[in-house]
Amino acid sequence: MKLFSAQIYSERRSQLKKAVGSGLILLLGNDEAPMNYTDNTFRYRQDSNFLYFFGLNQPGLNGILDADSGEEIIFGNELTIDDIIWAGPQPSLNELSRKVGIYRTESPASLPAKLKDFKGKVHFLPPYRFDNKIKLNEWLGIPVSKLGEEASVLLIKFVVDLRSIKSAEEIAEMEEAVNITGEMHKAAIVATAEGKMEYEVVSRIYEKLHFYGAELSYPVIFSANGQTLHNHYHGNKLAAGRIVINDSGAENAMGYAGDITRTIPVNKTFSQKQKEIYELVLNMETSSIALLKPGIQYRDVHLDANRILLKGFSELGLVKGDVEEMLQLGVGGLFMPHGLGHMIGLDVHDMEDLGENHVGYREGLERSKQLGLKSLRLARELEAGFVLTVEPGIYFIPELIEQWKAEQKFTEFINYEKLEAYKDFGGIRIEDNVLITPDSFKILGNPIPKTVEEVEALRA
Amino acid sequence: MKLFSAQIYSERRSQLKKAVGSGLILLLGNDEAPMNYTDNTFRYRQDSNFLYFFGLNQPGLNGILDADSGEEIIFGNELTIDDIIWAGPQPSLNELSRKVGIYRTESPASLPAKLKDFKGKVHFLPPYRFDNKIKLNEWLGIPVSKLGEEASVLLIKFVVDLRSIKSAEEIAEMEEAVNITGEMHKAAIVATAEGKMEYEVVSRIYEKLHFYGAELSYPVIFSANGQTLHNHYHGNKLAAGRIVINDSGAENAMGYAGDITRTIPVNKTFSQKQKEIYELVLNMETSSIALLKPGIQYRDVHLDANRILLKGFSELGLVKGDVEEMLQLGVGGLFMPHGLGHMIGLDVHDMEDLGENHVGYREGLERSKQLGLKSLRLARELEAGFVLTVEPGIYFIPELIEQWKAEQKFTEFINYEKLEAYKDFGGIRIEDNVLITPDSFKILGNPIPKTVEEVEALRA
Repeated sequence: MKLFSAQIYSERRSQLKKAVGSGLILLLGNDEAPMNYTDNTFRYRQDSNFLYFFGLNQPGLNGILDADSGEEIIFGNELTIDDIIWAGPQPSLNELSRKVGIYRTESPASLPAKLKDFKGKVHFLPPYRFDNKIKLNEWLGIPVSKLGEEASVLLIKFVVDLRSIKSAEEIAEMEEAVNITGEMHKAAIVATAEGKMEYEVVSRIYEKLHFYGAELSYPVIFSANGQTLHNHYHGNKLAAGRIVINDSGAENAMGYAGDITRTIPVNKTFSQKQKEIYELVLNMETSSIALLKPGIQYRDVHLDANRILLKGFSELGLVKGDVEEMLQLGVGGLFMPHGLGHMIGLDVHDMEDLGENHVGYREGLERSKQLGLKSLRLARELEAGFVLTVEPGIYFIPELIEQWKAEQKFTEFINYEKLEAYKDFGGIRIEDNVLITPDSFKILGNPIPKTVEEVEALRA
Repeated sequence: MKLFSAQIYSERRSQLKKAVGSGLILLLGNDEAPMNYTDNTFRYRQDSNFLYFFGLNQPGLNGILDADSGEEIIFGNELTIDDIIWAGPQPSLNELSRKVGIYRTESPASLPAKLKDFKGKVHFLPPYRFDNKIKLNEWLGIPVSKLGEEASVLLIKFVVDLRSIKSAEEIAEMEEAVNITGEMHKAAIVATAEGKMEYEVVSRIYEKLHFYGAELSYPVIFSANGQTLHNHYHGNKLAAGRIVINDSGAENAMGYAGDITRTIPVNKTFSQKQKEIYELVLNMETSSIALLKPGIQYRDVHLDANRILLKGFSELGLVKGDVEEMLQLGVGGLFMPHGLGHMIGLDVHDMEDLGENHVGYREGLERSKQLGLKSLRLARELEAGFVLTVEPGIYFIPELIEQWKAEQKFTEFINYEKLEAYKDFGGIRIEDNVLITPDSFKILGNPIPKTVEEVEALRA
């Protein structure tokens, strides 16, 4: 188990206790997750908040921080001789806990009474694992359906404040995750070819992932039907003339996520029509990144990417009219019905368990209702230390085009007739992970082929 | 989604309703399982009982069978226009249900009232997913901790009866799962080499798995420390002179599991010492398989494998004394502290969610308390149509040897002094999946290299 220094974890916990001020902070670890019966489990994934404050990447642990007394305890079982026989020699919980600066461990059995006996407020985060919901219900007497609203907003806010700013040690881990992700993407570009099944190419992504001892940070999207945004099906045969969206990322050993998208032509080169749209998306991506620095509102960057889209589409004759008007009305949502990006860290959508609005919005900054902008997960002003994704895309979704056309939506701006020729186009998305530095930005990781020339070079 | 014919599913459901006789049979499907937040999920896995009776491999479904009226309903949401926009065009729940012989679908919202209003007994299976525990608690008013004991033993028994006997269609699926698994194993034998990290070889296993569009049926065991039985760590460097246990299997598109073990020398050939133990394990495996036919008690086959072990160890001077006496006392448990095998089908430990004793034991056949035999999951008489694993192993577990030695256990039989020379040996296991035919057996799938010569041939 790779860990940061004990000092790092101790400092994070001290900052949290100080910020919360008083009461008991309860941080639940994740247990094993059953797949088709109790003992056949999915790959183990620790809770990201637990990882951030306690570091220990194993099931069966919970932690408390007493904001009044300062006391810090990890609850978990010590090893038995049977554990050693079946799972091999390993450090004790006590030894492990010392490595993250915790000097008191107790049996899991003593936690419920401790919570019951505590006189002040017990702060907990919104649970997303159902076993943890059952535990909180039993321990705190709160109905399962009320646990979300009873979670401590104070605790959520301070955890978000801390986790939003990535330290140098975290950035190094995130660079590693992006670099493994980059190897996955290069392998996929090389392996893509007419006549292959999508899952044959996906198998090369998994090979690279596991070659570096990593796990997926989210389910692989690799599809010749990239216009279908939530597409985890890999059963299509790659046909000549199609383009494939590969949105896949590695989670490194310490739990940090990479999240990269590249778009690959099934032919060895992009067609002229594909190149026009590809260059437009690439321009949206690089121009958005060039704007990044502390203080800029990410909502404005999203809108600027849309502005580039609408200008480009005006030149192609797919839309007509005043770009600023179209931007205000949300015409671009038809072609990019998702947000420009999100925070990334220990989670691919960082801290999504704590609530998107706590992470990406702030008081006075309300969520839009427009298609596209309403899905923007990160809208607020950026700060140095944030890491976020920049992932513009252009999609021609036949069902959505048909729907808008039938509703006669924005007929004064959208050239539905000309759009017919794009209904079998598919989609293009390009995505990188970017750190906000004190005065500008840094794209994380080694460069991953991105221009038309760079992508085509790997297809030779 | 690949499905058997509607007739097959209808017949299974009819048999179940008839066997249970009266009351409402409730079969819960699995939903998506959250990894690090609600919307970042593990790979989807449907519940095996739901797959067996309803076939539909997607989240959000539950089914009821009314044993009195005969009525059959699937509860789930119909597609919205948003679903089609985001997830692509797809058949409706109604269309899908017809394909498995169900002509009535209802909204999930109507299920709780249906259960509440039902006058007779509601039969349900023991839940293992925590979200399903929460649902059953809400719908039936049974405390979460009591759901296991309140599950219908009648329903469990009849589901076990049906699922235990594999049909010809199921066998074809299981052969496919074993064949994909075989490709994974061959790739691992070829890739194993001194100086590589375990996960580098594991990456080849994943590549083959996904190349065939399959998923893991259980977490990969690939370890140069095969003596540690529950070992999912892949971070060791493969050192000259070690042997590696590869216990890994594919789950094919219809959900059927393969479960194969091979043992690979890190050097290009086995050493003389390794060969002696390897040949002994191979003899245990092939001799056990040769005994298989309807009517034989699998407990006896397990004991026979132990007999071969003890005879072989007598010849090697590792044990001494009367083999039958040692067998009765359980001396062999030190070297093979697990059972010879288990049922396999839609689950790698088939129907383990329904309770191991319901699947592998019967009235009058009690579980042993001896190390090894107590872990035997399948002990009962075999029947034509059963598919099971045969997986003998020999391990030298330093911690266990030390424990027995310190307790002076079986000192009259075990040559602890001579065992010292084996403490760095590791472990060997060989496993195949075998169908019980009307008069003997059939090893499923294409042959996977198993003899010393066959394994070494792939290392050339």
